[in-house]
Amino acid sequence: MASSLISRQFALSLQKNLHLSAPGCRYVSKAAPKTQVEFDYDGPSMKTSVPGPRSEELTKQLGHIQNVGAINFFCNYEESRGNYLVDVDGNRMLDIYTQISSIPIGYNHPDLLKLMSNPNNLSTLVNRPALGILPPENFPEKLTESLVSVAPSGMTRVQTMACGSCSNENAYKAMFIWYRNKERGHNTPSEEDLSSCIINQSPGCPELSILSFMGGFHGRTMGCLATTHSKAIHKLDVPSFDWPIAPFPRLQYPLEEFTRENAQEEARCLEEVEDLIVKWRQKGKPVAGVVIEPIQAEGGDNHASSDFFRGLRDIARKQGCAFHVDEVQTGGGTTGKMWAHEHWGMEDPADIVSFSKKLLTGGYYHKDEFQVDEPYRIFNTWMGDPSKNLILSEVLNVIRRENLLEEVNRSGRALMNGLFELQAQYPGMLSRARGVGTFCAIDICDDKTRNRILITARDKGILLGGCGDRSIRFRPALVFKEYHVHLFLNIFNDVLAQLK
Amino acid sequence: MASSLISRQFALSLQKNLHLSAPGCRYVSKAAPKTQVEFDYDGPSMKTSVPGPRSEELTKQLGHIQNVGAINFFCNYEESRGNYLVDVDGNRMLDIYTQISSIPIGYNHPDLLKLMSNPNNLSTLVNRPALGILPPENFPEKLTESLVSVAPSGMTRVQTMACGSCSNENAYKAMFIWYRNKERGHNTPSEEDLSSCIINQSPGCPELSILSFMGGFHGRTMGCLATTHSKAIHKLDVPSFDWPIAPFPRLQYPLEEFTRENAQEEARCLEEVEDLIVKWRQKGKPVAGVVIEPIQAEGGDNHASSDFFRGLRDIARKQGCAFHVDEVQTGGGTTGKMWAHEHWGMEDPADIVSFSKKLLTGGYYHKDEFQVDEPYRIFNTWMGDPSKNLILSEVLNVIRRENLLEEVNRSGRALMNGLFELQAQYPGMLSRARGVGTFCAIDICDDKTRNRILITARDKGILLGGCGDRSIRFRPALVFKEYHVHLFLNIFNDVLAQLK
Repeated sequence: MASSLISRQFALSLQKNLHLSAPGCRYVSKAAPKTQVEFDYDGPSMKTSVPGPRSEELTKQLGHIQNVGAINFFCNYEESRGNYLVDVDGNRMLDIYTQISSIPIGYNHPDLLKLMSNPNNLSTLVNRPALGILPPENFPEKLTESLVSVAPSGMTRVQTMACGSCSNENAYKAMFIWYRNKERGHNTPSEEDLSSCIINQSPGCPELSILSFMGGFHGRTMGCLATTHSKAIHKLDVPSFDWPIAPFPRLQYPLEEFTRENAQEEARCLEEVEDLIVKWRQKGKPVAGVVIEPIQAEGGDNHASSDFFRGLRDIARKQGCAFHVDEVQTGGGTTGKMWAHEHWGMEDPADIVSFSKKLLTGGYYHKDEFQVDEPYRIFNTWMGDPSKNLILSEVLNVIRRENLLEEVNRSGRALMNGLFELQAQYPGMLSRARGVGTFCAIDICDDKTRNRILITARDKGILLGGCGDRSIRFRPALVFKEYHVHLFLNIFNDVLAQLK
Repeated sequence: MASSLISRQFALSLQKNLHLSAPGCRYVSKAAPKTQVEFDYDGPSMKTSVPGPRSEELTKQLGHIQNVGAINFFCNYEESRGNYLVDVDGNRMLDIYTQISSIPIGYNHPDLLKLMSNPNNLSTLVNRPALGILPPENFPEKLTESLVSVAPSGMTRVQTMACGSCSNENAYKAMFIWYRNKERGHNTPSEEDLSSCIINQSPGCPELSILSFMGGFHGRTMGCLATTHSKAIHKLDVPSFDWPIAPFPRLQYPLEEFTRENAQEEARCLEEVEDLIVKWRQKGKPVAGVVIEPIQAEGGDNHASSDFFRGLRDIARKQGCAFHVDEVQTGGGTTGKMWAHEHWGMEDPADIVSFSKKLLTGGYYHKDEFQVDEPYRIFNTWMGDPSKNLILSEVLNVIRRENLLEEVNRSGRALMNGLFELQAQYPGMLSRARGVGTFCAIDICDDKTRNRILITARDKGILLGGCGDRSIRFRPALVFKEYHVHLFLNIFNDVLAQLK
């Protein structure tokens, strides 16, 4: 195993000959930078097609316990390193999907292994506290050095939760509570509020709504699901709320070539948002909050301009609605900034910012006025998990120490350049290359070809994910360097040539 | 620290003199069994009132980041052992609340510390997989030796989730999907189903309901919250669903003295359940599932008889509704059986059983017919956490090896006997002692006295929790032995004498 780990020297010599040594290479790299991911492997290595026989066997076993329709393959996490995911059949793949965008600094990062082998941290692993009532001594400190240290502009408060869906559910609740307190003009609920809410009736359980966007994804629990509109299979058969759904701009790419058309489309959507807010207020179901992703991820990597988000923020403020930016997939550095909304350049970008995935714990930041007035309104048994805060602290240290956001910007540029070149080379197959940092995507001519590309790439050692109807999304870890970009582009070129 | 740890010999000699050595002891123990919790302390030890100055300081710090209204005090989890929670001011309390009933085998159990210091488990801690697509090699094996090994009767399938709320949310979804598939008579949704669900409209998002019970608690995300009816503050200002809410039997205790009255009350509730199911079907919002706790916990430790649950199960079956038993708080051994519903003695007790807390991971068991037909219908990024499954496996080993369910039954009997005696001694203050295993409760004359008892007991080193309007609930870990029961009863007697 150790012999497969790449040394700096070896990586350097390898990169110099990259276009020769990579199997089936046709795409000529423009740069061959030195890799600094010392705990990485030197490239993909495939022994079977994927899933291999051992994965098939385990899938069969698991099939007795669970639906296994979504299982790709089984993994050997012990042997996985950096950007490489190793499966149980000994296949080693360059991972550009990273557990649905949730691995921040690669597999088995040495600093994390060191952290978790420190006996001082054992107690955090075996005694999970009820954080809302009995937090550990270091909880304020760990929050301060982790989540608070990367708080979005205008926010100093953060509530941790166990996962992304719980984060959004509780953020919605915070917006509803805020809205009703505003309506009441004071914080004391009436007797009628209290007696009606216990039986699900208004005014205690008011007819309020959250405005969301077509193509948006905010999770799969019932509150979140009412704001999720990416794929029918997520929502089918589950009761929902009559909440307004606005169109998300359908832009033309590259954005800078279609500024006029895109501005028109965004103006149309903003107008529709304002109309819906008015309409739902008239229907007696006022919009307490607007929720949006900075880049619609699951829905197909749909971008919108800073102007659009500024306009939306203004409409929300003007209409008295809270503004919730869902950074569950975009947060954590993958766009080259800690939060994607930082690209908008606003001092007051949001009232609430939710996160999970790369942040390892779920949760949401909020402005002071969204702090609930009484305890137990936003509450559950665990309220997160200190063992995840512990790992997050170290992840943030690594990000700072290794300047990983800079690396993301560098890799992102290389990736976009490569995608543009491939798009020019395969115009019938590829289109709409788009991205910020390494949060990139490209469209394939059709769904079937997209899926063939994903499978062929996987068999050549590149793990990618789909999104939307026919897009491929790139979601590497923050340790995905230029070196890995070129490695990927070479193999991807090979796949495209094979399938064209 | 080590000098405070109790040795077997010392415990033995201590117990012989228990009624002399416990501070302010007036309650004379009937038994003084040898403790076998070797990693335990020898009793409470209080240095300050609670919260002490260090806790106050940390609460102030955390107050800059979060609402701290529910914070009891800050804990030193490193120093906590077995049944004893140590706070940051050096106070050591006998913990009969265990992080809202979520610590299965006490703090810092040596077997868990050993497990988590095993370098082979490091990878599980630092590489959290997306379990639904890329599970680790040992996932089927770990599921089999943990959750599957304690599966409820009639169930071999289990889906893990990150927390109790997510477990119930997804269980509800599984019941809705099952119900609609049954209605459709086949598994293929119509074009109209698919196009309407994406915009939250029926028939794709159907007007189905879940029947729940007044006083029930099933979590705080929006689907769960629509079935939670324990306290107004949990629900206030959050939109909800128009779902039927049945009365939960209000029984008289001790149950065996009021069998006729209680049977009448239960019959009344069952009749109402059936009426509501018919009524909601007529309203066009058919009941897809019935959800109930085997003992209503948060709502005030309300019990019902096996006959009631058998009757309810029959009604659900007859009316074509799924039957979901929520064992989030009752599960994991605290009633003297792994699942509280085992006390009903039924071969087919439920269609779905959800869990979390003491099981360390959330999730739900289900009968085969509740397995979703397609992938990604019950799905999220993490789908649980293998590091929790790992700990759960060892917890179950400890439960078996140390016969902890037997211990729970023994301790439970001692606890109930003690509560009955105290109730006889303080008839104006205590009433309605009730319980199964160590899952016990007692009512206090009024809310104010209840809270004074909780605080006075805490200052004497006993940590208890409230539930309902004026109940105290006992939720010790499974390592709470007869020895601890008597230690508790002695101090509790002291508290009552002081406040009477």
